[in-house]
Amino acid sequence: MIHCAEYVKPDGRRLWLYGRRPPSPLGPVPSPFSTAVSVDTHLRFHPLLREWVIYASHRQERTFLPPASSDPLAPTKDPANPTELPVGDYEVAVFENRFPSLVPEAGPAPAVEGAETAAAVGACEVVVFAQDAGQSLGELPADRISLVLEVWAERTRALARAGMAYVLPFENRGTEMGVTLLHPHGQIYAYAFVPQVQAHAAAALREHYERTGSDLVADLARGERDRRIRVVAAEGEVVAFAPPFGRFPYETWIAPTRSVPDLAGLTAQETADMAVALSQVLRRLDGLWGRPMPYLMTVNQAPSDGVPHPEWTVRIEICPIRRAPEKLKFLAGTELGAGVFANDITPEQAAADLRGVRL
Amino acid sequence: MIHCAEYVKPDGRRLWLYGRRPPSPLGPVPSPFSTAVSVDTHLRFHPLLREWVIYASHRQERTFLPPASSDPLAPTKDPANPTELPVGDYEVAVFENRFPSLVPEAGPAPAVEGAETAAAVGACEVVVFAQDAGQSLGELPADRISLVLEVWAERTRALARAGMAYVLPFENRGTEMGVTLLHPHGQIYAYAFVPQVQAHAAAALREHYERTGSDLVADLARGERDRRIRVVAAEGEVVAFAPPFGRFPYETWIAPTRSVPDLAGLTAQETADMAVALSQVLRRLDGLWGRPMPYLMTVNQAPSDGVPHPEWTVRIEICPIRRAPEKLKFLAGTELGAGVFANDITPEQAAADLRGVRL
Repeated sequence: MIHCAEYVKPDGRRLWLYGRRPPSPLGPVPSPFSTAVSVDTHLRFHPLLREWVIYASHRQERTFLPPASSDPLAPTKDPANPTELPVGDYEVAVFENRFPSLVPEAGPAPAVEGAETAAAVGACEVVVFAQDAGQSLGELPADRISLVLEVWAERTRALARAGMAYVLPFENRGTEMGVTLLHPHGQIYAYAFVPQVQAHAAAALREHYERTGSDLVADLARGERDRRIRVVAAEGEVVAFAPPFGRFPYETWIAPTRSVPDLAGLTAQETADMAVALSQVLRRLDGLWGRPMPYLMTVNQAPSDGVPHPEWTVRIEICPIRRAPEKLKFLAGTELGAGVFANDITPEQAAADLRGVRL
Repeated sequence: MIHCAEYVKPDGRRLWLYGRRPPSPLGPVPSPFSTAVSVDTHLRFHPLLREWVIYASHRQERTFLPPASSDPLAPTKDPANPTELPVGDYEVAVFENRFPSLVPEAGPAPAVEGAETAAAVGACEVVVFAQDAGQSLGELPADRISLVLEVWAERTRALARAGMAYVLPFENRGTEMGVTLLHPHGQIYAYAFVPQVQAHAAAALREHYERTGSDLVADLARGERDRRIRVVAAEGEVVAFAPPFGRFPYETWIAPTRSVPDLAGLTAQETADMAVALSQVLRRLDGLWGRPMPYLMTVNQAPSDGVPHPEWTVRIEICPIRRAPEKLKFLAGTELGAGVFANDITPEQAAADLRGVRL
C-alpha cells in the first residue's frame, strides 16, 4: 500500500510525497528557486544512428556538487535557505527536475538548417529515496526499497497516462558516474518516443517470443536460477544473476521468473522479493572491495506505447563501472565507437565473487 | 609516399616502423616481455542488444599509468629495461597489443551454458604517433599527421586482406577517457564481423543513398561548407564541422566533400588537407579552455566485408568529454540506458566557440 500527496512548488514544479501511511498535510512546500525556470531544450535527429539527441543549453547552469551543509535534497531546516524538500513524515519524495532535458509542455522546436528537429516533450524527475543523506539505496530497509519500487511503478503509470511512450527510472551512483548531488537519489526520464535502445530490445524480444512462445528475460531468470552458476541472490520468485553476456564488470540483472512487463504488474510479494534481491546485490557490490560501487542502475520496463508486450519482462540492470579496487571501467574506442564492449571479468567469476561477499 | 619495415618482437608480436624515407635497418627489436603472452579471450552474444561482447580476463593485468621514467612507448634507452620500441629513425610505429581483446589466431571459444560464444578473432594494435612523448597528435607537424593517416590506411588495408570485416582506428585521449599510458598513441581494433554501430550506420546510409543517389556524409560535408554556420575548419576539399545533430559537447567531424569510402581512397592532396583540418580541430579543442581536451576520436571507414560501399564516405569523429572548464560530460542514465544523448551545447555554438579560439 502506498499513499501520495501532490504539491506545487513556488516555481511551479510539482512535488509528490510518498509513504506507507498518508503523509501529514503540509503548508506551502519549498524550492531553492522562486521563479519558474526558463527551459531551452529541443530534439534533433541523428540520421546515421537514427536516434534523437537532446539539446538543453540551460542545463550547463545546473547545481554541481554543493557542500553537504547545503544539501538541496535534505528537508528544509532554515526557511531562509529553502531546499527542494519540506520537513514532514513522508518516506520517499519525487519532484520535477529544475534543470530538465525534457518537459511535459515543451515549446515548438526551432527550425535548424541541416537537421530534423522536434519538441523536447517528456519529463525529468528526481526521486529521493530517504530524508537521510547518509544511507544509500542498498542500505535502506527492505520495505523502504519496496516502497521505492512502488513509487517507480506509480510514476511510470502516471507518465504513461500522460502520453509518454517510454518511462525509464534509473540511478547514477557515485561521482565516478557523474553524480552532481551526493544525497542518494535516482531519476526518471520519460520520452514521448520509444528510444532506440528499447526499440531494438523490443524487436529482439519479439523475435524470441515468436520463435519460442515465451519471453527471453523470464526464460533467462528461470534458466539462471536452475543452473545456479551465475546466481548472485534469489528471493522467492525473483532472481539476481550475472547475465551470461554482461557488458560491464559485475553487471547484475534482477528479474522475476514469471512474465511481467512492468513494475506495476508485479504482485505485492514479488515486489517485496525484488526489493530484498536488490538490497542484497547492492550491498554485495559495495562489499566487494569495501567501498561504494559506482554504477548505473536502470529499470527496464516494456514501452507504454499502447500495445501489449507479452515478449517483455521487467528487469533491473545494474552496470558497475569499477573493474578493480583502484581501476574504473571506461567506455572508449571499442565500446563507444563500435558498440563492442570488452569485459575483463566473466559473468561466472563475477557471480562467484559477489556470492563470496560476507554481508 | 610511405615506407614500412616489419619486425617480430622476442615475445612473437609484430612491429611495423614507418617513415617518409625507408627506416634504417635494425637488429633485434625490444619488448618489455620475453615470452609469448597467454591470451584468454572469447566472444559472447548479447541477445537483447544483438551485439558481441568480448571477455578478456588476461587484460586485468595490463600496464596501468606507469611513471614517465618508464614510458613503454618511448624508444629503449637501457637494453636492460626494454620498452616496446627500438631506437631508430622511424617516425610512426605500430605493434600488436600485449594485452589484446581480439587476436588473429584466436583459440576456439569455450562452450558456455546459456550463451552463444565465438572465437575472439580480430586484432588489437597500438599506434605510436611520435617518438617524443611530449607532443600530442594535434601538435605534430601536418606532414606527420598525414603520415599517421597513411599508416591507418595501410593497416586497414592489411587487416582487411587478412579477412577482417571492420577496422577501427581510434584515439582515446586523456586519463579522463581511461588512457593508461600517457605517451600519445592511438589504437586499431579489427573485427571479424561488422560491429553493431557500423551495421546500423551502413543501413541508414544505404537508405539515404537509395533515396538520393548520393552519400549522406559527403552531402553533409558539402552542405556544411556551403552553409558555413557550423564549420570549424576547412582545407581544400576537406571540411571540419560540428555535425548538426552531434551528441557530445564540441563534437566535430572531418570529412571530404567527395564520396570516398575509406582513407586509402583519398588522394594525396585530400590526405594532406585532412591532416591540416585535423590539426586545426585538435588545437582548437585544446585552446578552448587552455588545457588538453579529453576525447574519443574514431576513424569511420566503410566495412571491409567484400561488397562495394558507395553509400559511405570516411569521416573522422572527435567526441570530447569536457563540457566546461571544470566539468566532464558523463554518459549515464539517458545515454547508456536509452541511447538518447543530452548535449548542453548546440553545434552552432560549439562551432562558433571553436572558430573563436586563437591558434
